[in-house]
Amino acid sequence: MNRLAICPGSFDPVTYGHLDIIERGAKVFDQLIVAVFNNQSKAPLFSVDERVALLEESTGYLPNVSVDTSKGLLIDYARKHNADAILRGLRAVSDFEYEMQITAMNRKLDENIETFFMMTNNQYSFLSSSIVKEVAKYKASVSDLVPEPVEKALQKKYNKKS
Amino acid sequence: MNRLAICPGSFDPVTYGHLDIIERGAKVFDQLIVAVFNNQSKAPLFSVDERVALLEESTGYLPNVSVDTSKGLLIDYARKHNADAILRGLRAVSDFEYEMQITAMNRKLDENIETFFMMTNNQYSFLSSSIVKEVAKYKASVSDLVPEPVEKALQKKYNKKS
Amino acid sequence: MNRLAICPGSFDPVTYGHLDIIERGAKVFDQLIVAVFNNQSKAPLFSVDERVALLEESTGYLPNVSVDTSKGLLIDYARKHNADAILRGLRAVSDFEYEMQITAMNRKLDENIETFFMMTNNQYSFLSSSIVKEVAKYKASVSDLVPEPVEKALQKKYNKKS
Amino acid sequence: MNRLAICPGSFDPVTYGHLDIIERGAKVFDQLIVAVFNNQSKAPLFSVDERVALLEESTGYLPNVSVDTSKGLLIDYARKHNADAILRGLRAVSDFEYEMQITAMNRKLDENIETFFMMTNNQYSFLSSSIVKEVAKYKASVSDLVPEPVEKALQKKYNKKS
Amino acid sequence: MNRLAICPGSFDPVTYGHLDIIERGAKVFDQLIVAVFNNQSKAPLFSVDERVALLEESTGYLPNVSVDTSKGLLIDYARKHNADAILRGLRAVSDFEYEMQITAMNRKLDENIETFFMMTNNQYSFLSSSIVKEVAKYKASVSDLVPEPVEKALQKKYNKKS
Amino acid sequence: MNRLAICPGSFDPVTYGHLDIIERGAKVFDQLIVAVFNNQSKAPLFSVDERVALLEESTGYLPNVSVDTSKGLLIDYARKHNADAILRGLRAVSDFEYEMQITAMNRKLDENIETFFMMTNNQYSFLSSSIVKEVAKYKASVSDLVPEPVEKALQKKYNKKS
Repeated sequence: MNRLAICPGSFDPVTYGHLDIIERGAKVFDQLIVAVFNNQSKAPLFSVDERVALLEESTGYLPNVSVDTSKGLLIDYARKHNADAILRGLRAVSDFEYEMQITAMNRKLDENIETFFMMTNNQYSFLSSSIVKEVAKYKASVSDLVPEPVEKALQKKYNKKS
Repeated sequence: MNRLAICPGSFDPVTYGHLDIIERGAKVFDQLIVAVFNNQSKAPLFSVDERVALLEESTGYLPNVSVDTSKGLLIDYARKHNADAILRGLRAVSDFEYEMQITAMNRKLDENIETFFMMTNNQYSFLSSSIVKEVAKYKASVSDLVPEPVEKALQKKYNKKS
Repeated sequence: MNRLAICPGSFDPVTYGHLDIIERGAKVFDQLIVAVFNNQSKAPLFSVDERVALLEESTGYLPNVSVDTSKGLLIDYARKHNADAILRGLRAVSDFEYEMQITAMNRKLDENIETFFMMTNNQYSFLSSSIVKEVAKYKASVSDLVPEPVEKALQKKYNKKS
Repeated sequence: MNRLAICPGSFDPVTYGHLDIIERGAKVFDQLIVAVFNNQSKAPLFSVDERVALLEESTGYLPNVSVDTSKGLLIDYARKHNADAILRGLRAVSDFEYEMQITAMNRKLDENIETFFMMTNNQYSFLSSSIVKEVAKYKASVSDLVPEPVEKALQKKYNKKS
Repeated sequence: MNRLAICPGSFDPVTYGHLDIIERGAKVFDQLIVAVFNNQSKAPLFSVDERVALLEESTGYLPNVSVDTSKGLLIDYARKHNADAILRGLRAVSDFEYEMQITAMNRKLDENIETFFMMTNNQYSFLSSSIVKEVAKYKASVSDLVPEPVEKALQKKYNKKS
Repeated sequence: MNRLAICPGSFDPVTYGHLDIIERGAKVFDQLIVAVFNNQSKAPLFSVDERVALLEESTGYLPNVSVDTSKGLLIDYARKHNADAILRGLRAVSDFEYEMQITAMNRKLDENIETFFMMTNNQYSFLSSSIVKEVAKYKASVSDLVPEPVEKALQKKYNKKS
């Protein structure tokens, strides 16, 4: 069987924590679409186009991973692409409760699309896009937190601003 | 690709909560082995053979699911069967922290076998083998908590005892 | 004895999860006032008047439940109405810690008004006003998440906006 | 209406944390039965009769509180006494998840008996029967953790043992 | 050895919960710098200068405590002052996960500065600057939640506003 | 000032997670006593003397760390040694709640001895003595989980047993 999973997120920007999940997911699913969703309640640092471009540069070495974007409901997107599964990373208890809520709702909207979780590698369990931005804003090095293209993009953003 | 997942547990006895995860897993993986591990620190109600038999009766309708048992380390079992993944259910925060610990250890023992989690259906999020045994012990009905063969086996055990 | 409880919340809008708690509370307390508090830190979708109207339509079948609104401190409101108790629903660990904080503070402000908690039915443990609004915004059906008047009110709001 | 609540527990022995909940509950319910359940999985320090006696001495000043014991299932006991509610204290997140599980099961067994929770006073949020026994075993003072009769009973137990 | 610790926070305004940690920390470290960081994502009630002044008035009786402010990254501030440790209070599970994230990041930025945590006294475990402001806004007394100068400052702020 | 801290535990056996905390603590406190307490409720694998010996071999390189054992109450031990502080590691939410309980009790028993917590390095956040024993029992390698003397001692124990 050919299995397709969607890995949704805001990826503002992608970190090594996200890449850890994407890489592991790509080993088990035949095809993985990383889908940038625009969470309107947060003011993003990077535009959706910039986030897609950074994801594409960072996942180029994974042949069965593609990057896309959507403005709608995750479950509608998954349905449209005939996805078998949604794939999400879990880092902490607070993630867990939020994800349970979203999963239960998605299951209510469509019982046929399963949600799978993977535990983020311990090494990255403290990592989030927000904390990366906080560190980069003060010009501290983020080179072992994000891929090189993201590091450069962060430097550019924060030099412009200061 | 042909994907094989192992769904390990003590299943003493199998409940509708376990079956929910097994059924969902069997939709995404090509083959699913439900493996009864004998957790020596707990005095079980059912012998390993009884637990395997109850699982076989309860999963008979799922063609790509088989039942097995092992005395060793989960990761050794998974390796021996060339499994691609380990599949576990998550019900609550307390599950989550325990599972994170086990997952991190398994990853340390073998990086190539991924662990996937699925959220148990809300309807069964309170369900555990222990609470089923507690209820059955007092002769209260467990018919919407466990499959019929398990219900009968529980009645037999507790009638013998009383 | 005649027992009066206050069930406070922002109810923006009321969901079947809220109604579950209101209905259960109304079975044990002689009188239950559902009180809409205006949490100024969030931009609400519905005005306080709209929220009161939707609650009234949705709780009309419960003779000992009334709906009210207040701009002040919950404990002042409870005192003014000679309430015996405050009643709140609990869904998840994150709710729990927030509620503990509020309860401890209210107890400090007035030791004579007790706070009682009820667990939301499993079936609705994932449900929140926010997630209902998110789903309704994308025109997905919320008919088994909120009472009919709320469903219609949500459709009206989001059609106007789009 | 006359409201009866059951406050179940193992009370091995009763602490000021339990008494805090019993006292608060007795202010809102017309009648409160404190019911000692014998959790067979733990080796108790006090016999059920001793625990009942200590509870009776400690709650004597509360006219609408009585003490009882039961060997069966809580929900059967509650039904037999026509209870309106079960009352439980909550101290911490770990309590919360366990209580959610029990509440969901009890609701499945009988929808008409509601479970209410009260937050234990902050001052006692660290208190448990186990920690009191641990402290008393080493002859440290427990006089502000348990009522006087319990303190004496603990001294007697641990003097006998040493 | 002479040990210097930094106690960082937004302190908007300082509460008895913060003072509890500061006082305990000052007993173990030779020198303690309370450092006001300006968290730009929240609209503060008090300016950084006001917060520093309130902290100075409230900690004046502790000879080895000084108050300072910084706009940069905590770890840069700690390094510049040759601090041995960062000291933080923990109240609840939600604090804990956030603090783990920050600690892991700070450790990544500088392995030589250790972070120590102290549990806030039970009596203040529900207390936060936000809840104090909420209570003061409605003219309820906060005299046993914050030091006197803070109480007066809060009254002034909210009288001006209303 | 000369600062003495006690680092208590059952250490059955010591792991790299424990050593991480001991090493970090030894950088900030002038003297650190690692104290083996015999938790009577668990059947230990190693005797107290064996545990002390393994700790001594594993901490020999830290000049200001000594190893001791005690049968009494931690707070009595700390008092007898004029300790300024108790030092504990925190790995997860479940640790946190247990530690809060113990800390509150110790504070009640003696207000002058402060408890400090350090977060275990992410790399070891999944590590516990129990999981190490589980892995060693099945002859899997524990060489990057425990110091060499502990690895050898584990092999000896489990070879004898099998």
